[in-house]
Amino acid sequence: MKHIFLIFLVIGQVLPAKGVTAMRLEWQVGHHQTLNDSPREWMPATVPGAVQLDYAAFNQLAPYWYGDHWRDYEWMENVYWSYRCSFAAPQIDEGERLYFFSQGIDYQFIITFNGHQMLEQEGMFTPVRLDLTAWLQSDNTLQVTIFPAPKSRQTPVDRSQADQSVKPAVSYGWDWHPRLIPLGIWDDTGIEIGRSIQYQNIQIDYELNDDLTAADLTLEMDLPPSNATHYQWQLYHPDGDQVFEQSSSIEQSHLCLKHKVTPVSLWWPHDQGTPALYTSVFTIYRAQERLAEYRQRIGFRSVRLVMNAGAWDEPRSFPMTRSVPPIQIEINGRHIFAKGSNWVPPEIFPGIITRNHYETLLNLAVEAHFNILRLWGGGIVNKQAFFDLCDEKGVLLWQDFPLACNDYRGTPHYLSVLEQEAGSIIRKLKPHPSLVLWCGGNELFNAWSGMTDQSSALRLLNALCYHLDPQRPFIMTSPQMGIGHGNYVFRDLDSGEEVFQLMKRARQTAYTEFGVPSPSPVALLKTFIPPEHRWPPRPDTVWQSHHAFAAWKGETWLVPSTIEHYFGKQETLEQLVANGQLLQSEGYKCIYESARRQKPYCSMALNWCYNEPWPTAANNSLINWPHDPKPAFYAVQSSCRPILASARFDKFIWHEGENFTTDIWLLNDSHEPVTDAKVVVRLVGDTIVESQECTLSAAEANSNVVGPTLQWKLPGWQSDRFQLLLEVEGHPEWNSTYTLLYRRTKSQ
Amino acid sequence: MKHIFLIFLVIGQVLPAKGVTAMRLEWQVGHHQTLNDSPREWMPATVPGAVQLDYAAFNQLAPYWYGDHWRDYEWMENVYWSYRCSFAAPQIDEGERLYFFSQGIDYQFIITFNGHQMLEQEGMFTPVRLDLTAWLQSDNTLQVTIFPAPKSRQTPVDRSQADQSVKPAVSYGWDWHPRLIPLGIWDDTGIEIGRSIQYQNIQIDYELNDDLTAADLTLEMDLPPSNATHYQWQLYHPDGDQVFEQSSSIEQSHLCLKHKVTPVSLWWPHDQGTPALYTSVFTIYRAQERLAEYRQRIGFRSVRLVMNAGAWDEPRSFPMTRSVPPIQIEINGRHIFAKGSNWVPPEIFPGIITRNHYETLLNLAVEAHFNILRLWGGGIVNKQAFFDLCDEKGVLLWQDFPLACNDYRGTPHYLSVLEQEAGSIIRKLKPHPSLVLWCGGNELFNAWSGMTDQSSALRLLNALCYHLDPQRPFIMTSPQMGIGHGNYVFRDLDSGEEVFQLMKRARQTAYTEFGVPSPSPVALLKTFIPPEHRWPPRPDTVWQSHHAFAAWKGETWLVPSTIEHYFGKQETLEQLVANGQLLQSEGYKCIYESARRQKPYCSMALNWCYNEPWPTAANNSLINWPHDPKPAFYAVQSSCRPILASARFDKFIWHEGENFTTDIWLLNDSHEPVTDAKVVVRLVGDTIVESQECTLSAAEANSNVVGPTLQWKLPGWQSDRFQLLLEVEGHPEWNSTYTLLYRRTKSQ
Repeated sequence: MKHIFLIFLVIGQVLPAKGVTAMRLEWQVGHHQTLNDSPREWMPATVPGAVQLDYAAFNQLAPYWYGDHWRDYEWMENVYWSYRCSFAAPQIDEGERLYFFSQGIDYQFIITFNGHQMLEQEGMFTPVRLDLTAWLQSDNTLQVTIFPAPKSRQTPVDRSQADQSVKPAVSYGWDWHPRLIPLGIWDDTGIEIGRSIQYQNIQIDYELNDDLTAADLTLEMDLPPSNATHYQWQLYHPDGDQVFEQSSSIEQSHLCLKHKVTPVSLWWPHDQGTPALYTSVFTIYRAQERLAEYRQRIGFRSVRLVMNAGAWDEPRSFPMTRSVPPIQIEINGRHIFAKGSNWVPPEIFPGIITRNHYETLLNLAVEAHFNILRLWGGGIVNKQAFFDLCDEKGVLLWQDFPLACNDYRGTPHYLSVLEQEAGSIIRKLKPHPSLVLWCGGNELFNAWSGMTDQSSALRLLNALCYHLDPQRPFIMTSPQMGIGHGNYVFRDLDSGEEVFQLMKRARQTAYTEFGVPSPSPVALLKTFIPPEHRWPPRPDTVWQSHHAFAAWKGETWLVPSTIEHYFGKQETLEQLVANGQLLQSEGYKCIYESARRQKPYCSMALNWCYNEPWPTAANNSLINWPHDPKPAFYAVQSSCRPILASARFDKFIWHEGENFTTDIWLLNDSHEPVTDAKVVVRLVGDTIVESQECTLSAAEANSNVVGPTLQWKLPGWQSDRFQLLLEVEGHPEWNSTYTLLYRRTKSQ
Repeated sequence: MKHIFLIFLVIGQVLPAKGVTAMRLEWQVGHHQTLNDSPREWMPATVPGAVQLDYAAFNQLAPYWYGDHWRDYEWMENVYWSYRCSFAAPQIDEGERLYFFSQGIDYQFIITFNGHQMLEQEGMFTPVRLDLTAWLQSDNTLQVTIFPAPKSRQTPVDRSQADQSVKPAVSYGWDWHPRLIPLGIWDDTGIEIGRSIQYQNIQIDYELNDDLTAADLTLEMDLPPSNATHYQWQLYHPDGDQVFEQSSSIEQSHLCLKHKVTPVSLWWPHDQGTPALYTSVFTIYRAQERLAEYRQRIGFRSVRLVMNAGAWDEPRSFPMTRSVPPIQIEINGRHIFAKGSNWVPPEIFPGIITRNHYETLLNLAVEAHFNILRLWGGGIVNKQAFFDLCDEKGVLLWQDFPLACNDYRGTPHYLSVLEQEAGSIIRKLKPHPSLVLWCGGNELFNAWSGMTDQSSALRLLNALCYHLDPQRPFIMTSPQMGIGHGNYVFRDLDSGEEVFQLMKRARQTAYTEFGVPSPSPVALLKTFIPPEHRWPPRPDTVWQSHHAFAAWKGETWLVPSTIEHYFGKQETLEQLVANGQLLQSEGYKCIYESARRQKPYCSMALNWCYNEPWPTAANNSLINWPHDPKPAFYAVQSSCRPILASARFDKFIWHEGENFTTDIWLLNDSHEPVTDAKVVVRLVGDTIVESQECTLSAAEANSNVVGPTLQWKLPGWQSDRFQLLLEVEGHPEWNSTYTLLYRRTKSQ
């Protein structure tokens, strides 16, 4: 029984008993200058995909990710594209209809069938289902015409052109993404024969009781005229056992069924328990015939944002402003420290993202001990498979709406498209237990965006989420009051402040973006930087268009002056990459562990960013495109272990004869208490400095231990770096290692 | 023409051509212990009014405001009260109906007519209109049964009992309001004969063009079946001239009419221009018969909250949080400095508040140069007349919803009542141009309330305001980020910090509550403090129950230790009151003028509080109950003049031989530039210190001028205080005077 469910599991989608008959289609695509033109040339099209990729394949363009060839694709954003497919009339039995469906067409489009305009839509997140039956002929042609990429203005040619559409802004150009705006059919699309009743919406909600031992489950559905006679509703436990079955005759066009489930196995993020997924199977019959079957997975869990510990004690003096808003995640009544990263699109062209690609990246997130990902608002809302996987793997999700770093003015047109698209997004994601937070978008309340709490778009999003999904927390943007974004370098470009000092003075409820850049591995660099550009890295080369220079500010993201500051003039590409990656690794370790030390006032740490959509030359990412971990990934994995010994120190470069001082902590995010532990701490240059021992006291679940401050006078090593080792007696899995720089003389 | 309109002007209410026939009713009231009991005794009732006042009048209780007699009324919150009235069947012509209507019944009630239950309602702000016609007999009895005051719990006996109702929390006890919870019919109520079409809602909206020269006016209405044949729509200019008239036959049950008005006379707050009010007259005819007429006033104006000057430049460092939200009011494209106060209920029993009482208090607000009042969420939403008067007088309004200093949990019952009541409030207030800001309630995001941005009640209010009134700004609470509340004393009770130092270090976008207390005038004190309690003021006497002691914290609001700190032991009531009132006057001058000096980053100053609902012995109010200005009122009036010379100094007590230092400013909130001005500054003890002259440069509209810092060595005066006089040549209306304390020796 269990295995059958796993095979058929598709949230919110219909798998009817008789089954839907999908038709195999051959698509073609071509471009034209005006809406009513036709393409002069039709090329084979991959659906789902992107018009750019079809054109490139047909015309044998060099890959967009090699060198500066992305520029060869730029004109494609400015023309119309038409898809078409032809098919002979299939056999349609009585009661059946012929449908065109698409989970997503990017971005504005018109659909015609045999010359009849069936739909005009703006918005890539609202699925399409069109009943073609009435216009069916013996030979049929379906056409989807895509408008040029939406732009609110012709100049400047940057992300601000996206400020009146619900098109992800990132593809208009970002500090790690080239200007390359995908267009086309980007999600599951086809023609199928089925019954209208197979495509109804059913809504399953539940309410957990206060002690989380029982759930009141509700199923609601509007039935179309169908001669349906009765229904059957079954719920299956994650282990495959049937929890209940109820059935009854259908008397009304609106069904509202209830069932109390008790006891209930809760859905937990992977680091807190098991992500238990029940399966609801709702079947509609006409006599013995199964007309339709709806399967949906259900994860029973409660989620709230609650005040961060200590936040109600502030502010303390008059004139008194408000306390900071809550960002502490409480899941199933338990406060957790949220550790993770900012997810960005794993491909420039969302049409080619596969379930396997999602799964590889999500497996790495679990391996990194990440329990949450922020789905950043500059990118797309992922495909269904992503959310299914997160439900299964127990990865919490924070979903930004597609607004980022712009002032999305509340014009009537924009608000109407936003309402449609946000409504579609909410309905699609609502059933997923992994989703724990809606957010209006990225950095909207900072000067470079210019939106405020008064912006109609954000008031609309708050209202929509409240009406459609009232149990799930909503915030208007990140950062909100109390949350910090940045810095994005190991060492501040102006002040010279290092992450070690920054994190010592910082005090936020959450760090939801922070970055430390590094160059990409040499092997990857060689795949896309032509040999003549490779060494030395220079502005105005492929290095720059792949974001090593002038990406954000100064020399980001390569920042060679910082690498030279610490390691001197770099002689080879290999040396440059290794040293840059060391800075990234040690920098990220400092930030994650510092944020964890600030628990419980601080409740979240998410670095910028997790992955990347194409090969960058340098970036803050932990994982190179398409899914290759950098050394920093493993450093972060170490810092995010549920329990670890952790050292705090104040700077990166230390000198001979200096007193090296470090505070020893035990960080515990697990929901198990830890007993006291003996830690041996040693410094290893080219010789080992005498070790010191200390004892860390026992700790409650999800509580840190502050140990002693240890001190050594640094000896005269020959090496230019040394390691700080923390070895926990009986718990080698809690050991930690830090690499620091060493100088023989005080002068640099 | 003009005068006729002024007489009939009632916003959003129907004055049909034929007219509604109102019936004179004699009401009675009595109390009972359970819902289905009847009163053992019926007493004459005043409608609108309050059950407590009817009981008190009939039973000759001492007034609730004298001594501790309010305690005699406390039991009345715990019983049921029933009103009844009887009347003979009136003549009702064809097409007419008999209605019971009420603008407000406080708080939960059942209405029965001739034994039929017509309505059960919770909520005092949702008007009632019931068609009685079908149940009419020759002799009729209407009964309104009021439930005991709503309480979410039995103890503690305080405001927290109001946290699951939309009953204003103030009457559950506050630091200036006794525990006395009004109940009963509190707003216009009666029985009348009319046509159903006379009571339809019409909605008039407008959109101003960008340069504010034209308005697109829209009128929408759903027509009931009525045989109506045609309509006429007329708009009259404030000067009485007709702007347009359009009429047409009625073809559909939904009317949507449009008209462009150009040029348009804008509505302005009184200190910025003229509060121009147009009048729309919409008439529905059946042939020659006028079936219904709807009159509504329209004030054309735009309002937004825009970023405070300089706020986008913050924050400046990483980790970077958001910029503060906007609180700068922009009206008709003009940024204004909002000066005003926090309005509280002018009576404990809202049923006895009259239009005259409102008008007296509002005239004083205009005299004080206040352009805004915050209608504080602990109190009621005022009656219609209040908003009409503010429209006419050009006083801006900030309306809190009725939530204050509690955690209003989002239970299904509470949310449903809140949705009903807030919807009624929004529909009632929406047509008023004076209303510029909705606010969820008072101090909800501070520890003593415990609500957050996640609270369902506040998300619901945002959604309701967005859907019903999207053009008007909404904030969830005050203080929000960047706004300050408090302090509420001249000198901090713990640190000794005076308002002079506090306001020097403070930097807020708005000061929306700040208080300096004073005793009430001797004459008022004598009206309610029995002679044996009067001197000296002591805790646990009538002084305390009228809030002179232990009201907020420490010795508030009399704070005798602070008066003694500055003036030594007080020998008489007269001396105590005079000195306490001096502190209040000088303290408020400092705060208002300091806030104005912080313009444009700061954009608002509202003291706590304007008025009071009963005679307090000491309070932060500017106006004693019912409407008698304190000396501080005139001090504030001086500090709120559109243009004035203003002095900044750092403390209140100065000593012989000390260097007295003051900065001279010209504060200009007017929308006129000012030319340069010569200011003569002198210090006057028992002798006059040699004056100094300075010149203040010219200033733009709504811009301050920072003048020089002047200094004197203080002489040996005999007096214990001195005055700092600023005399502006040619502009005596800009002169200012400050009183400070003086000591012969350095020791106190």
